[in-house]
Amino acid sequence: MDDLLARLRSGLPSEALLTDPDVMASYANDMASFCAAGAPAAVVLPRTVEHVQHVMRTATALRVPVVPQGARTGLSGAANASDGCIVLSLTKMDRILEINPVDRIAVVEPGVVNATLSRAVGELGLYYPPDPSSWEMCTIGGNIGTASGGLCCVKYGVTAEYVLGLDVVLADGRLLTTGRRTAKGVAGYDLTRLFVGSEGSLGIVVKAVLALRPKPPRSLVVAAEFGSAADACDAVCRIMERGHTPSLLELMDRTTVRAVNAMANMGLPDTTEALLLAAFDTPDPAPDLAAVGDLCAAAGATEVVPAEDPAESELLLKARRLALPALETVRSATMIDDVCVPRSRLGAMLDGTAAIADKHGLTIGVCAHAGDGNTHPVVCFDPADPDESRRARTSFDEIMALGLELGGTITGEHGVGVLKKEWLSRELGPVGLELQRGIKRTFDPLGLLNPGKLF
Amino acid sequence: MDDLLARLRSGLPSEALLTDPDVMASYANDMASFCAAGAPAAVVLPRTVEHVQHVMRTATALRVPVVPQGARTGLSGAANASDGCIVLSLTKMDRILEINPVDRIAVVEPGVVNATLSRAVGELGLYYPPDPSSWEMCTIGGNIGTASGGLCCVKYGVTAEYVLGLDVVLADGRLLTTGRRTAKGVAGYDLTRLFVGSEGSLGIVVKAVLALRPKPPRSLVVAAEFGSAADACDAVCRIMERGHTPSLLELMDRTTVRAVNAMANMGLPDTTEALLLAAFDTPDPAPDLAAVGDLCAAAGATEVVPAEDPAESELLLKARRLALPALETVRSATMIDDVCVPRSRLGAMLDGTAAIADKHGLTIGVCAHAGDGNTHPVVCFDPADPDESRRARTSFDEIMALGLELGGTITGEHGVGVLKKEWLSRELGPVGLELQRGIKRTFDPLGLLNPGKLF
Ligand SMILES: Cc1cc2nc3c(=O)[nH]c(=O)nc-3n(C[C@H](O)[C@H](O)[C@H](O)COP(=O)(O)OP(=O)(O)OC[C@H]3O[C@@H](n4cnc5c(N)ncnc54)[C@H](O)[C@@H]3O)c2cc1C
Ligand SMILES: Cc1cc2nc3c(=O)[nH]c(=O)nc-3n(C[C@H](O)[C@H](O)[C@H](O)COP(=O)(O)OP(=O)(O)OC[C@H]3O[C@@H](n4cnc5c(N)ncnc54)[C@H](O)[C@@H]3O)c2cc1C
Repeated sequence: MDDLLARLRSGLPSEALLTDPDVMASYANDMASFCAAGAPAAVVLPRTVEHVQHVMRTATALRVPVVPQGARTGLSGAANASDGCIVLSLTKMDRILEINPVDRIAVVEPGVVNATLSRAVGELGLYYPPDPSSWEMCTIGGNIGTASGGLCCVKYGVTAEYVLGLDVVLADGRLLTTGRRTAKGVAGYDLTRLFVGSEGSLGIVVKAVLALRPKPPRSLVVAAEFGSAADACDAVCRIMERGHTPSLLELMDRTTVRAVNAMANMGLPDTTEALLLAAFDTPDPAPDLAAVGDLCAAAGATEVVPAEDPAESELLLKARRLALPALETVRSATMIDDVCVPRSRLGAMLDGTAAIADKHGLTIGVCAHAGDGNTHPVVCFDPADPDESRRARTSFDEIMALGLELGGTITGEHGVGVLKKEWLSRELGPVGLELQRGIKRTFDPLGLLNPGKLF
Repeated sequence: MDDLLARLRSGLPSEALLTDPDVMASYANDMASFCAAGAPAAVVLPRTVEHVQHVMRTATALRVPVVPQGARTGLSGAANASDGCIVLSLTKMDRILEINPVDRIAVVEPGVVNATLSRAVGELGLYYPPDPSSWEMCTIGGNIGTASGGLCCVKYGVTAEYVLGLDVVLADGRLLTTGRRTAKGVAGYDLTRLFVGSEGSLGIVVKAVLALRPKPPRSLVVAAEFGSAADACDAVCRIMERGHTPSLLELMDRTTVRAVNAMANMGLPDTTEALLLAAFDTPDPAPDLAAVGDLCAAAGATEVVPAEDPAESELLLKARRLALPALETVRSATMIDDVCVPRSRLGAMLDGTAAIADKHGLTIGVCAHAGDGNTHPVVCFDPADPDESRRARTSFDEIMALGLELGGTITGEHGVGVLKKEWLSRELGPVGLELQRGIKRTFDPLGLLNPGKLF
């Protein structure tokens, strides 16, 4: 232990190494509930690639596990410390190194906050689409670690589609460069993509080349209220089947709408059973907005309200971004699920989730990236009540089982971490799991990188 | 050998096993020039997953290498037979199993021809974007094997972005299912993506879930002639920098234009130094087409000709699709390169390629997916002339070296195969190569799948 700290110190500036137990404790957890976390032996805040290499060489020499961290907004415990580990927080490597409008790329360090990058490229007329609701806090490194999604995925896809190349420090401290600065490239296996979503288990991302797009016009939103979640899901299917390409297609159930109103008094329709938001960011969104309004009405919407202008649209989006934090206030704790089903099964997913809530006598609010079939059932409970806690955990698991039954996945965007470890093997099956473990061994033979996560 | 055939026969219908040496010889090569190929011991045309599993179990038991093949339109020798191998041609597994307009997916067997799928989904108002110029021949399995691109990538991306999930028969005959039917999913490492572009070296794709999009309006094309390739490349940079999103942005140099005219008498402007084609498939392409025309003029275009209608546009696209076959007629043989550079370096790439042609006294025609910076310099030569052949090979290599120097990749879409094996290690470096080999060992410990390709 003393040896570890002495060795770490030898290659790091003093302010990069934190050893105060209270300070270290504040780095133990991400934002997932009920995920075990241990006490780190050291917290390192590197400023350079060389610092990261020094940490990994030290970790390899002494066989000490390393837990990479971004902003710790993760929702699966994937960034949680383990006992005696080195926490490697990349938040101080936060420079935007390059923005190139002709090549439409940005080159960034991993600690850059998503919103910071989005604003910087926006000033040049460019757009970095991945926009998790945590965008004001979360880092690009964490987004890459989790392959994070967001509100605009239904049109623009997820983080994975925007990562062109990476610099990665491997478990043994060697530096690997993957991918490219070019728009296309097929030289060898796609290692870049392998790192995206690998939850810090294959290497430390120290630089990323990201693809950008031209900034679209500001989007206009139409909101539709429904008398049942099933009707809203029917509307989603009609919208997608008719070939519309909304830049956002989000659903909030009654519980979510009320929670958002209670938190921020946004004047959402408190009486609705389901609120659907659709946005278009094309030069002339009017025809799409009108057609989508009609499809919602045909699916049984009780009211269809187009936003008057971008400001009103922005307000609706803000309400949607508040959904998770708002649901967290319903009871003293939440477990946030992240099941994604084929969008044709969205109605069945929501009905099934409501039945699970009923069965266990729990409040489960659902917000969903509906256009992607990605639901976030939020199980609200009181951790001081052991029976309610047990029912919460059971319902959380039943929701994943339902998702798999409907041809879906246990995680659309939040990842596996420690929260869904047992479920990963159920989804992948033994052959898949064996190969995943083989890949892990190829990159990290000593098992030092974020051990105990994923599988 | 007899043992091999007997074992194969035991699990296959007789018409699935070809052993006539002449017939087998016709399966030895893909369409790449100057790539070594051997004589197969057997050619198998499976109709079912079980057939494929039987072949792989037999191959593993007897340690016989297996070379998967689609339509053998590949341009890197990646589908070439090796001596004594089993050629496994997936062309008879060619059923479209499902097209789902709500989930926007198609489920297909690997032998489905790209154009067949495109037409089938088109009839339902859907669109499968990846469109290699070989689309009337090449298979989805081959497209996945090579991660192939095409004309529409500049807007819609490459094959990799459309593969959601796979069924794969592993080297030992076990069946692996990867990925999903959902729009999103992050459960574990992205094995699906790892298979895309793996050139048959990790497993046999027997089923694929593909993402579809709504069918866009028919595109309209504007053509611009330039007095130099540099000016045309300058126009490309301006178009992309200004935030346009063409559905196609292609360049043909003088040699290419003349070759296409000679082959198909299409009335392209024979005197041009470079012809740029830009297309837009938005509901109202007029403003973009006009703006792009202006940008071309500003970059020095000698003439800007908007197509009058979709029919005229289609003719221009047809001309572009003929570029490679036409260049193949310039001399008796060609080597087709596939270097992709950041688009800001496209001008330097074209100038450098012209200098290489001059230096070696060769004709090198260039067509390019210009919007992606992906050039196809086609080295024309007479294989009966040993000195010219030597110069052709040298210039081919110098073009790759130039691409790497300009921050590019040795292959934008055609892959490595046997043609660019030595170059792959130069691009990836020792650390990358070691990890790639580690992944190969994880999937194929006996090294039976398409050995001698990639590395
Ligand atoms: C209110 C709220 C809303 C959210 N909304 C969304 C949403 O809409 N969509 C969505 O996808 N997620 C959402 N999330 C989850 C979370 O914000 C994302 O997963 C985000 O990508 C995590 O980023 P981070 O910087 O906080 O990473 P962390 O939580 O610190 O880490 C996440 C993972 O990445 C790894 N990691 C971090 N940095 C690196 C690096 N440099 N190299 C290698 N590995 C690294 C960690 O080890 C860990 O496994 C939300 C969270 C909250 C709290
Ligand atoms: C005129 C012409 C134009 C072309 N234009 C383009 C273009 O615009 N863009 C582009 O990217 N390419 C282009 N190509 C190259 C070629 O068509 C593509 O690489 C195509 O994807 C190959 O498909 P195929 O079915 O012919 O596969 P093959 O050539 O038979 O095989 C290609 C690779 O995939 C592997 N493979 C095939 N099927 C399977 C399977 N089921 N499971 C596992 N591995 C498998 C093979 O082993 C091999 O490594 C062109 C070729 C020609 C001749």
